[in-house]
Amino acid sequence: MTTREREFEIGRSLLVGDTADIYLHRTLTILRNEGLNPEVVMEFFAQRAGVFCGINEVKSLLSRILPETGWEVWALDEGAAVAKSEVALRVRAPYASFGLYETAICGTLASCTGWATASHECVDAAGGIPIVAFGARHTHPSVAGVMDYSSVTGGAVSCSSVLGARLAGLTPSGTMPHALILVIGDTVRAAQAFDRHMPPEVPRVALVDTFHDEAEEALDVARALREKLRGVRLDTPSERGGVTPPLVHEVRARLNQAGFNHVDIFVSGGVTPERIREFRDAEAPVSVFGVGYYIAAAPPNAFTGDIHEIEGRPVAKRGRIPGITVNPRLTRVL
Amino acid sequence: MTTREREFEIGRSLLVGDTADIYLHRTLTILRNEGLNPEVVMEFFAQRAGVFCGINEVKSLLSRILPETGWEVWALDEGAAVAKSEVALRVRAPYASFGLYETAICGTLASCTGWATASHECVDAAGGIPIVAFGARHTHPSVAGVMDYSSVTGGAVSCSSVLGARLAGLTPSGTMPHALILVIGDTVRAAQAFDRHMPPEVPRVALVDTFHDEAEEALDVARALREKLRGVRLDTPSERGGVTPPLVHEVRARLNQAGFNHVDIFVSGGVTPERIREFRDAEAPVSVFGVGYYIAAAPPNAFTGDIHEIEGRPVAKRGRIPGITVNPRLTRVL
Amino acid sequence: MTTREREFEIGRSLLVGDTADIYLHRTLTILRNEGLNPEVVMEFFAQRAGVFCGINEVKSLLSRILPETGWEVWALDEGAAVAKSEVALRVRAPYASFGLYETAICGTLASCTGWATASHECVDAAGGIPIVAFGARHTHPSVAGVMDYSSVTGGAVSCSSVLGARLAGLTPSGTMPHALILVIGDTVRAAQAFDRHMPPEVPRVALVDTFHDEAEEALDVARALREKLRGVRLDTPSERGGVTPPLVHEVRARLNQAGFNHVDIFVSGGVTPERIREFRDAEAPVSVFGVGYYIAAAPPNAFTGDIHEIEGRPVAKRGRIPGITVNPRLTRVL
Amino acid sequence: MTTREREFEIGRSLLVGDTADIYLHRTLTILRNEGLNPEVVMEFFAQRAGVFCGINEVKSLLSRILPETGWEVWALDEGAAVAKSEVALRVRAPYASFGLYETAICGTLASCTGWATASHECVDAAGGIPIVAFGARHTHPSVAGVMDYSSVTGGAVSCSSVLGARLAGLTPSGTMPHALILVIGDTVRAAQAFDRHMPPEVPRVALVDTFHDEAEEALDVARALREKLRGVRLDTPSERGGVTPPLVHEVRARLNQAGFNHVDIFVSGGVTPERIREFRDAEAPVSVFGVGYYIAAAPPNAFTGDIHEIEGRPVAKRGRIPGITVNPRLTRVL
Amino acid sequence: MTTREREFEIGRSLLVGDTADIYLHRTLTILRNEGLNPEVVMEFFAQRAGVFCGINEVKSLLSRILPETGWEVWALDEGAAVAKSEVALRVRAPYASFGLYETAICGTLASCTGWATASHECVDAAGGIPIVAFGARHTHPSVAGVMDYSSVTGGAVSCSSVLGARLAGLTPSGTMPHALILVIGDTVRAAQAFDRHMPPEVPRVALVDTFHDEAEEALDVARALREKLRGVRLDTPSERGGVTPPLVHEVRARLNQAGFNHVDIFVSGGVTPERIREFRDAEAPVSVFGVGYYIAAAPPNAFTGDIHEIEGRPVAKRGRIPGITVNPRLTRVL
Amino acid sequence: MTTREREFEIGRSLLVGDTADIYLHRTLTILRNEGLNPEVVMEFFAQRAGVFCGINEVKSLLSRILPETGWEVWALDEGAAVAKSEVALRVRAPYASFGLYETAICGTLASCTGWATASHECVDAAGGIPIVAFGARHTHPSVAGVMDYSSVTGGAVSCSSVLGARLAGLTPSGTMPHALILVIGDTVRAAQAFDRHMPPEVPRVALVDTFHDEAEEALDVARALREKLRGVRLDTPSERGGVTPPLVHEVRARLNQAGFNHVDIFVSGGVTPERIREFRDAEAPVSVFGVGYYIAAAPPNAFTGDIHEIEGRPVAKRGRIPGITVNPRLTRVL
Repeated sequence: MTTREREFEIGRSLLVGDTADIYLHRTLTILRNEGLNPEVVMEFFAQRAGVFCGINEVKSLLSRILPETGWEVWALDEGAAVAKSEVALRVRAPYASFGLYETAICGTLASCTGWATASHECVDAAGGIPIVAFGARHTHPSVAGVMDYSSVTGGAVSCSSVLGARLAGLTPSGTMPHALILVIGDTVRAAQAFDRHMPPEVPRVALVDTFHDEAEEALDVARALREKLRGVRLDTPSERGGVTPPLVHEVRARLNQAGFNHVDIFVSGGVTPERIREFRDAEAPVSVFGVGYYIAAAPPNAFTGDIHEIEGRPVAKRGRIPGITVNPRLTRVL
Repeated sequence: MTTREREFEIGRSLLVGDTADIYLHRTLTILRNEGLNPEVVMEFFAQRAGVFCGINEVKSLLSRILPETGWEVWALDEGAAVAKSEVALRVRAPYASFGLYETAICGTLASCTGWATASHECVDAAGGIPIVAFGARHTHPSVAGVMDYSSVTGGAVSCSSVLGARLAGLTPSGTMPHALILVIGDTVRAAQAFDRHMPPEVPRVALVDTFHDEAEEALDVARALREKLRGVRLDTPSERGGVTPPLVHEVRARLNQAGFNHVDIFVSGGVTPERIREFRDAEAPVSVFGVGYYIAAAPPNAFTGDIHEIEGRPVAKRGRIPGITVNPRLTRVL
Repeated sequence: MTTREREFEIGRSLLVGDTADIYLHRTLTILRNEGLNPEVVMEFFAQRAGVFCGINEVKSLLSRILPETGWEVWALDEGAAVAKSEVALRVRAPYASFGLYETAICGTLASCTGWATASHECVDAAGGIPIVAFGARHTHPSVAGVMDYSSVTGGAVSCSSVLGARLAGLTPSGTMPHALILVIGDTVRAAQAFDRHMPPEVPRVALVDTFHDEAEEALDVARALREKLRGVRLDTPSERGGVTPPLVHEVRARLNQAGFNHVDIFVSGGVTPERIREFRDAEAPVSVFGVGYYIAAAPPNAFTGDIHEIEGRPVAKRGRIPGITVNPRLTRVL
Repeated sequence: MTTREREFEIGRSLLVGDTADIYLHRTLTILRNEGLNPEVVMEFFAQRAGVFCGINEVKSLLSRILPETGWEVWALDEGAAVAKSEVALRVRAPYASFGLYETAICGTLASCTGWATASHECVDAAGGIPIVAFGARHTHPSVAGVMDYSSVTGGAVSCSSVLGARLAGLTPSGTMPHALILVIGDTVRAAQAFDRHMPPEVPRVALVDTFHDEAEEALDVARALREKLRGVRLDTPSERGGVTPPLVHEVRARLNQAGFNHVDIFVSGGVTPERIREFRDAEAPVSVFGVGYYIAAAPPNAFTGDIHEIEGRPVAKRGRIPGITVNPRLTRVL
Repeated sequence: MTTREREFEIGRSLLVGDTADIYLHRTLTILRNEGLNPEVVMEFFAQRAGVFCGINEVKSLLSRILPETGWEVWALDEGAAVAKSEVALRVRAPYASFGLYETAICGTLASCTGWATASHECVDAAGGIPIVAFGARHTHPSVAGVMDYSSVTGGAVSCSSVLGARLAGLTPSGTMPHALILVIGDTVRAAQAFDRHMPPEVPRVALVDTFHDEAEEALDVARALREKLRGVRLDTPSERGGVTPPLVHEVRARLNQAGFNHVDIFVSGGVTPERIREFRDAEAPVSVFGVGYYIAAAPPNAFTGDIHEIEGRPVAKRGRIPGITVNPRLTRVL
Repeated sequence: MTTREREFEIGRSLLVGDTADIYLHRTLTILRNEGLNPEVVMEFFAQRAGVFCGINEVKSLLSRILPETGWEVWALDEGAAVAKSEVALRVRAPYASFGLYETAICGTLASCTGWATASHECVDAAGGIPIVAFGARHTHPSVAGVMDYSSVTGGAVSCSSVLGARLAGLTPSGTMPHALILVIGDTVRAAQAFDRHMPPEVPRVALVDTFHDEAEEALDVARALREKLRGVRLDTPSERGGVTPPLVHEVRARLNQAGFNHVDIFVSGGVTPERIREFRDAEAPVSVFGVGYYIAAAPPNAFTGDIHEIEGRPVAKRGRIPGITVNPRLTRVL
C-alpha cells in the first residue's frame, strides 16, 4: 500500500454497512443461517468506455475488510483507459467477507470514473492548454474532495478544493471570488489586498468582471500590480453574454498594447469540451480553462458486479458468460 | 430544529473547510488582515426549475457555524418547487462567519435538488404507481445516503440504502440480489431460504430472471411460497432485451391463470421517466418501479450565491441587480 | 396624384430604359418594325404573401410614361396585405407604351414588398413596442431612402435616413453613433455636448456601451443629464455577447434604483422577429427596438407580369390561365 | 482614377447626405460646435467571407468628398476574396470630411459584396458552364445596374440590364421575353421576326415554352431558323414542374436527332447553386445558366466601420482592438 | 359460403403444399410418426393496425381442407378495421388438418391487409374524391387480381385489372394507354378511334400528355369529341415535372373557358396520400385519382399464428399468454 | 430455352389477359378495328438500381405468345445489376402479339427485381455469413415461390418454400416451427422426435426459445442430440426483447464451455440489413441469418415500357427520347 492510498479514509458508516443496499444485509443473514460462505469470483465491468478511477479508494476499502489471507484482487490501474464492458476489477474471496460492499465498490468506481472521464474530455479538447477543476461548488461537499481527485486523475493540472488537492498530492488552485471584491468594494483594491496578504508562492490572478468591463478591469489591475500580476480571470456571467473568444482576443491585445504580455488569461464559466473547441477554433489565446459544472454533472459510468465462479466452478446469471473473463490488462493489486 | 434535522451530521472536514474552494480561505485571510467583516446578505438561486432539496442539511450546517446572534436565514421549504432563477435561500450574517461555506452550501443544494427533481420526474410519470430509489450502487458511498434521502423528498416511497432510509425516517426497501440466488444455486431454494430466515415484516419479493425465463421462475417461486409471496422482481438484463411491457403482461397473466393474483410485479433495470411512460401507455400491470441510474445520473441544479447587500447598502456584481430580491415564498428558518 | 406620390422622383436612367432588360428593348424594336402595338392587359402577382409596397412609386412612373388617354391601372393599396399569387397590379394599355418598364415595375414591387414585409414581421413580434428602421447602413445608398419608406409602410414608427423619413412624411430618428463618443473621448461628455448643441425637439438618447459596462455608462449619463435624458441605447457588440434580456432587466433596475424611471431603453444590434420574441418572453422592459440588418436582408418578393389579354382577347402563356383574373380588392388608381 | 471608376456617378442625394443616418448629421453639427475635427483612422470589415465588391464605387465617392490633401485610403481589390472579419478598407482623414458617408460606404460594400458573392457561388457550382445575371426584374431599378455589375465582378459572363453591362464594360445579354411571343402570337413567327429585325451580332436564342411543349417548340424554331439559331431557352414555369435535367437531355437528343447539334440550351427559372449542382450531377447538357432571383435575394454582407486611431493615438470601442489592424493584402487606392 | 367466396380459386400448388414452408411438411411427418394429432386452437393476430382483408380467400381455403366436422373458425369481417395485435382469426381443429397451411393463411392475410390498408389511406386522404386502383403493372401478375380486389375492399371505387374487378364484382376501369396514341400517331385521332370502336357504356377518357402540352391536347380532344368526352387523364411524367395542382387548375380553366365544363380531370402518376393532400390543400379540381405504385408497394401487415390451446388445455410459447384471447368482435365464419 | 425456364408455368388467367389492365384489351380492339398492327420496339427500364430479376419468367411468357417469326427480344441477364433508368428489356414485335402483356411483363420484373434487390442488400450486409429466405409466410401464396426464387437470385443460399426451392434448383431449408414443439410439449423431446423421423440428410437444427430461456434450451438439446445436432435457431419474440448480439455471444460461449463447438447458431426474427450490421459490428458469432419480412416487404422496382420505334421510325411520348436506346449490356435472349 502506497502513501497515496492511505489518504482515502474509509468512513465508519461505510464500514458498518449503512451505505449498503438493504438486500445485501439480508443476503448475508440468510447465507449465514444457511451456513454458506463459498469462495466466489466477482467481476466488475464498466457500462461504457472512459478513464478508470476510484480503484485506489476501493483498494483502501478492501484492505480494511478482506480477511488475513485467501483472496486475490486484480484490477486496471487508476487512470487507465477502460473499454465498454471490460472487466476492470476482479475479487476472489469468501463471499461473506466482501458481499456487503458491492454497493460501495460499484458506486465508488461509477462516480470516480464518470468524473475522471469528463475531466479527460476537457483535457483532450484543450490540446495542451491546462485545465483546472473548479467543480466543488456544484457537488455535495461529502464528495467534493474525491471528485477533484478524480478530475486530476483524468488530466486536470489542479483543482480548487483543499481536500481534492491533498488527495491528488497537489497544491490547490484558485484566484479570487466575487465576494472578496464586493466586500472590499473595488477590483483594484481587492487585487492589492490580495497581493499584500498572500504569501509569494500564491500566484496573483485577479477576477476582472465584477464592477466594470472586463478589458477595463484587466488593465486597471495590471497597471496596479504590474509584473507581480500573474493573470486575470474572465468569468463573465450569462447575463452579459458569457466569455466569448473575441473578448479573450481583445483583452489579450489591450494587455499587450500596454506592455503586459506576461499576464495570463484564465477563462471560467460554463466551460465544456465543445466550448473549449470553439475557443481553440477561434485561436483565442486562453492560458488556463477552469471547468466546474461539466465535471460535476458527469453521469456516473455504471459498474456491474457479477459472480462468475463459486468454489472454482464457472457460474453466471442469464445474460452473462460463466467463468472468469480473461483480461491481460488486469494486474494483481492486493 | 426538528429531530430530522439533527440527523444530518456535518463532517469534520467540512467544518474545517477542507471541502471549500481554496480562494475562500484566502479571502477570509485577506479580509481579516484588512480588518473587514461586514454584515452581508447573500442570496442563493437555482439555475433551473426543480424540487428544492438540501436545505435541512444546510440548516444543520449553518446552526453549527453562525454566531450566537445577529443573523437571519430565510429559505424555501425542503421539497418545495423552486423556479428558474428564484431565490431559494437568503443569509444575512457577518461575512466571516459563513463565507467559507459558500462552496458547501451551493454544492449541497445543487446535488440534493438535482436528485430530488429526477426522482420527482419518475413519480410524475408513474401516475400513482410507487417508485423506490435503487440508485445507491451508482453513486459514491459518501453521498449514497443523502441521495436516497433526496429521492424520498422528491416523492419516492422508499429507498434501498440503510442510511438513506434512516435520514428519511423510513424502512429501507429491497428484494434479493442475484448474488444470493447464485450462491444458493437455485431461485426457488433462494426464495425459500429468504422466507425461512427473514422476519415476517420483510416482504417476500423474489428476483426471477437469474437462471430461467422470467415467467417460468415467477411461477416456480409462486408455487413454492404461495400466499407468502408478496411479489416478483423483473430485472432482465439488456443482453436479454430488458424488461418489456409485454413481458409484464405475460407474467401477470400466467400468475393469474395459476391463481397467484396476489403476487405483485416489481420492475427494475434502466427505468426512466420515458420508459415509465411506455409501460403506462402499454397498460402494463406494474406494481412498483425501482429507479436507480436515472436518479444517480441527475445533473446537479447549480446554485449561485450572490452578495446583494453590505452593511445595509444594496450592491451587486455586474449582471445582477443590487439589493434584496423580494420573494414572499421564503420563510425564516433560523 | 397626391403630394406624397410626387416625392418619388423617377430617375433619368430608368426613363431612358437603362435599367431595363435588354430583351425588352429588342422586343420593342421588333414589334415596331412589325407594326404591332396592341392594347394588352398585363397582370402582376406576388410570389408569396406579404405587405404590398412600391405601388406609389410605380404610379409615379406610369404617370410619366403612359399616353394621354386609353389606359387603365388597377392595384391594391400601398401597405395592404397581398396573398400568394394574388394579382396586385393590372395595367391595360398599348404594349409599346409601357413594355420597356416591366423590369422596373416588377423590381420596385419586389424590393419594396420584401422590405415592408420584413418590417411588419418585426412589428408583429413586438406586440406594441415601437420599431425604428435602422437598416440604411446595410443597403446600397441608391435604395436606402425607399427601403426606409417601405419599412415605415410595413409598420415601423420611424427610420434613420433623412430621405426615407422625407418619403414617409416623418422626422428621422437616431441617437448617437460610436464615432461621436470616440472622437469626444467620453460617453458622458459626448452626451453633454449632444445636449448642448441639439435643438430641444431632438430626444436625448445616449449610446451606452462604448467605453464601460452598459449599466455603468447608463447611470453615468443619467446622473449627468438627469430629467433631460430621454433614453439610453444598448447596442452591445457580439464580441461582448450582444444585448441580452437580463441586461435590459438589470439596466432598468439600476436606473430605477437611482430614480431614473423616466429613462427609456432602446435596444439595437442583430434584432430579428425571433429575438424580439425572446425579449418579450423574458418580459425585458424594452422601450424601442432598432431593426437594421433584418429588413435590409429581406429577400425580394418576386413579382411576375403576365399578359392575359391582347386587344380584348384572352391569352396566356402555358402555366397561366387566359383572361383577366377577377380580384375585387383592386381599385383603379390611374 | 481609371475609366471604369468614372462610370459610377455619385448622385446628388448621396452627396448632400440625404441617404445618411440622421445621427451622423447631428454628430457633425456637434463636433463642429465643439471645434473638433481630428484626423481619424476608420477601418471597415466584413461580417462574413465573400467576394469583395463596391470598392470602385466607394473610391468614386471618396474622390469627390475628401479634401485636397492629407488623407490615405487603403483597400482590397474589387473582386478579391474577403475573409470573415478581415479589414477590407481603411480611411485615414479628418473625421468631418467623410464621417457623414459612413452609412453609404458600409451600404455600398454590403450590397455589392452580397451580390458578387451570390454570383460567385453559382459560378463555382457551374464548373465552367457560363452564368448570365438575369436578376434586374427582382430588384429596385435604382440598384439594378450596380447589382448586375456586382454579378459580373463575381464571375458572371454577362447580365441583362443595359446599365449593368455598361458599368461592367460588356454587351448586355438576353433572349426574348414571353411578351414578344404572346403579342406576335406564335413562337416560330416571333423567332423569325427577331431574326428579321435584329442586327447580325445579336445571337438568335428562342424562348421555347410559351404555347407548346418545350421539345416541340425547340424543334419548330430550329426548323425555321436552322443554322441561324444560336440556342433555345428553357424557362418552364413551376406550374409545369420547372426545368428538369431530363427535359434538357430530351431536348438535346431531339435537336441532335434532327441535325441541330449546333443549337445551345439555355436554362433559366429558379436557378440556384444547389439546382446547378443537380443539373451537373445528372450530366444535363446545359450551355448557359440564367440566374436571377438567387442573386437579387442575396443577403448583404454587413460591413462595420470602426475608428481605431484618433490623431495617431490607438482607440477603440469595447469589443474592438485599439489601433490599426495589420493587413498586408491592402493596397493604397487613393 | 356466398357467391363471392367461390370466386377465390385455390390453386393446386397451394393445396398440395408447394407454397408451404418445408418445416411444416416435416412437422406433419414427425407428428404422424409419433401418432400425434391433437385438436388445437391457433390464433392469428396482426402486427399493426389496418383494414383487415383476405379472410374470404382464407375461408375458401379452409372450406377445402378442413374435415367434415369437428372444427370452428372465427374471424373479423372482410374490410373491418383491425387493431395492432388484435386476434383476427381463430381456428380450432385437429392440427394435422390445417397445420400445413399456416404459411398460406398468414401470407394471404398479410398481403391483402397491406394492400387494403394502403388503398384506404388514399381514400381517407381524398375526402370523397374517388380513387381507382391502377397498380396491376407494379406487381406480379399472379397477385394482380387479388391486389385489386383488396384495393376495392379498402375503399377504391374500381380497379384496372379484369380479374380484380371480377373478384370485386365490378366493371374494370381504364382510360387509354400511351401505346394506343403512339401507334395511331395522334392524340385526337386516337380519341376518335376509341370513340368509334368502344361500346357506349365505356366512358371516353382521353390521355392528354403524349405529344403536346396537356392543356393543348385536352382542348384538342374536347373540341373533337365534345359532349361525348367524359374526361381527360393527366399523367405527366416526372421528366416534365409530374402533374401539379396549378396544371389541374389551368386545364380546368381552359376547358371551362371553351365551354367544356362537363369534362372531368383524372390524375395519375406517383399519387400517394401525401400528394393527394397537396392537391386538396391547393383546391385543385381533381375528379378522380388513379393510384398504382403506392398500393403495390404497401408493406405486408405481418400476421402471426400461435397455438393457444391443445386438447382444451391453455398453452403458449414464451412471449405469449396461454389460452384463448377473448375478442367479442370475432364471429363464427365456418 | 433451358430447363430452368420451363419451370415457370404461365397460368391460364395470365394468358387470356385476365390479369391485364382493361385499357390494353380496349387498345387491341381499337387497333384491330382500325387495321393497325405495326412492328414496334418497346423498351422497359427500371425506376432505380437493383438486382434484375424476373426475366426468365418473362421469357417463358414471351415464348408462349410471340408469333413464329419476326421478332427479337434483348435483355439483361437474370441476376445482373441494373442501373436507374437503364433499359433492361427490349422487345421488337408486332404490337398486337404482345401489347396485352405489358401489365404482366412490367409487374413480373417489378416484383422480382424488388425481392432480389432486398435479398442482395442482406447478403451484402452479411459479408459472407449465409442468408436463408424465410419470407413465404409474409406474402400471398400465389407468389411465395417466385419470391423465394428471386431471393436466391439475389444471393440467398436457400429458401423455406418447396416451390421456391424447386424454381431455384435447390433443396428447401428449414428448422422446426414452434407448433411442433408446442404439440409435443417439450423442446428436447421435439428435437429427439425430429431426429428420429427425419432422413439423415436433413440437418438437425433446433428452435430454442419456446418454453425456457434460449441458452438453457440450447444446452438441453445439445446434450440430448450431441454430435447429431447441427445447430440451434434463436427466434426470440419482441416481447422478450428479440435476439440480441450479447445473446448470441452467450449461447456460443455456453455451448463451447459444454463442448458443443460444432453447433451452429441460426438467427431469425426481424432481421434486416441494418440489424445484420449490428450483429457484425458486435462480432456476434452468427452462422446463418434467416430473413423473412424484409424481403417480403421490399417495394417493387417499377418498370416502365415505352414504345421507341414504330415500323422502324423513332418515336417517343413527351419526356422520353425517340429511337432505340443503345445498351451494350443487352444480349439477345429470344
